[in-house]
Amino acid sequence: MPEAIDPHLAGPLADYADLRDVELRKSLEAEHGLFIAEGEKVIRRAVAAGYPVRSVLLTPRWAEPLADLLDTLEGRVHIVDDAVVEGLTGFQVHRGALAAMERLPLPSVEEILSGRASFPERAAPEPGIRPRRVLVLEDLVDHGNVGAIFRCAAALGVEAVVLSPRCADPLYRRSVKVSMGAVFAIPYARMTDWYAGLAELREAGFQTLALTPDQSATPLDRVDMADRVALLLGSEGDGLSSRWLREADEPVCIPMSPTAMGLGVDSLNVVAAAAIACHGLMRAG
Amino acid sequence: MPEAIDPHLAGPLADYADLRDVELRKSLEAEHGLFIAEGEKVIRRAVAAGYPVRSVLLTPRWAEPLADLLDTLEGRVHIVDDAVVEGLTGFQVHRGALAAMERLPLPSVEEILSGRASFPERAAPEPGIRPRRVLVLEDLVDHGNVGAIFRCAAALGVEAVVLSPRCADPLYRRSVKVSMGAVFAIPYARMTDWYAGLAELREAGFQTLALTPDQSATPLDRVDMADRVALLLGSEGDGLSSRWLREADEPVCIPMSPTAMGLGVDSLNVVAAAAIACHGLMRAG
Repeated sequence: MPEAIDPHLAGPLADYADLRDVELRKSLEAEHGLFIAEGEKVIRRAVAAGYPVRSVLLTPRWAEPLADLLDTLEGRVHIVDDAVVEGLTGFQVHRGALAAMERLPLPSVEEILSGRASFPERAAPEPGIRPRRVLVLEDLVDHGNVGAIFRCAAALGVEAVVLSPRCADPLYRRSVKVSMGAVFAIPYARMTDWYAGLAELREAGFQTLALTPDQSATPLDRVDMADRVALLLGSEGDGLSSRWLREADEPVCIPMSPTAMGLGVDSLNVVAAAAIACHGLMRAG
Repeated sequence: MPEAIDPHLAGPLADYADLRDVELRKSLEAEHGLFIAEGEKVIRRAVAAGYPVRSVLLTPRWAEPLADLLDTLEGRVHIVDDAVVEGLTGFQVHRGALAAMERLPLPSVEEILSGRASFPERAAPEPGIRPRRVLVLEDLVDHGNVGAIFRCAAALGVEAVVLSPRCADPLYRRSVKVSMGAVFAIPYARMTDWYAGLAELREAGFQTLALTPDQSATPLDRVDMADRVALLLGSEGDGLSSRWLREADEPVCIPMSPTAMGLGVDSLNVVAAAAIACHGLMRAG
């Protein structure tokens, strides 16, 4: 059973409350402008990307591996035992170290697409380099999927990500964790206007490709790609909205096995589709 | 709070106990030769694949959509309310219908590779057709990953899957669920001998390709593929064993972005890698 928490810890440690309660966390993180990084590697990547540390919460065995970082965080380090972490966060934290980080202001889509800003500041590519390969995520709801897609995108050379207004948050704990910190490695911005979103991409000179399971669309590896390409990925259940499908320059698909379709296995999950699509964008150069 | 369970239900309903307790479920399912299918679509696919139904447990609102199936299952249908399902299984079952299915005897690797058997019997391709594109999964531990890889494999025309002796079970509830039933659509078998496993593939005429994050390996899409290809995928943390890497005909990689590698995003997760690899196998024909 979790132990009672020392009331003196309640102040800064309130940042770590009930990490499994998605609704509570969404409002708490928005209100206080924070996010949670979990595990040594991810915490180090968040710090390296330039996010300020509000505090670190860890069990004693993580004090040594993180010593160099902790030395810079006087008064913001809380070493407590497993039961306290569990009592506070609501689950067993296997990676034994959590950091509450400050969010930073997001740049606009226009700033990201023009290369005038990067986000976070130390993400690749350097500010000033205009991204040529961009993913656009429309209304994904699953934080794990958003994180996994950032990991694919970063590993496979996608240079920026644009989120629809309602797309799940890349800095939510689970997104950050599943991405292995790739949300700190690739610049992103969020549209403020879903209706005008694709128009802004076209005005910036992007060819917009709408990924669909519809097998009558052009296979992705037969598309004649422009210098700047934005690949649109839709939500887990319904795929892209009909508006975006209609408005995009071209619907594109990943060819499926006809045998599998006969057996009802007629689509890939969004992460698998994103992985293949990012690989296709990189092959096309 | 979950309600007390009617003791008259205890017999057949013991199949559904504590679905989140992985260790308990593993021994219970092995001992009784059963597995759990969750949700209307997946249950129908399990039945269509030829697995016998032990029983179905559902909430009242699922009786109507499943009526045609339930009519064939006299005495094996248990309609109970949400609280009873939650009390029994240990969690809220969002898809409202669970089926306990009989496992069937697995064929041997040799039978699968020669096309003399399919598993389950009604998976594609038809028995008699020798598979040319095969995935081999070494010691994957995460059931969700196994399910997601089956889904990719089935959708992208991989014709059989071979599991290492210690690889996670494709019929575990979470594998089945994440696969969306693809574990019923693609034949598979489990090696009995890890040491001799690759020799058996070679004897059957398969070129063995070992997927590795090592960027000095041949990029997958530059490999000169033989008529029969077996792609080896390693476990989530450590990748392929050094023995299999050494013994395979060729190490192959998915090229990563050099920029991302500089930022520490130096690998794909196993599902993303599998998706790209299956797509590559299909492209190579």
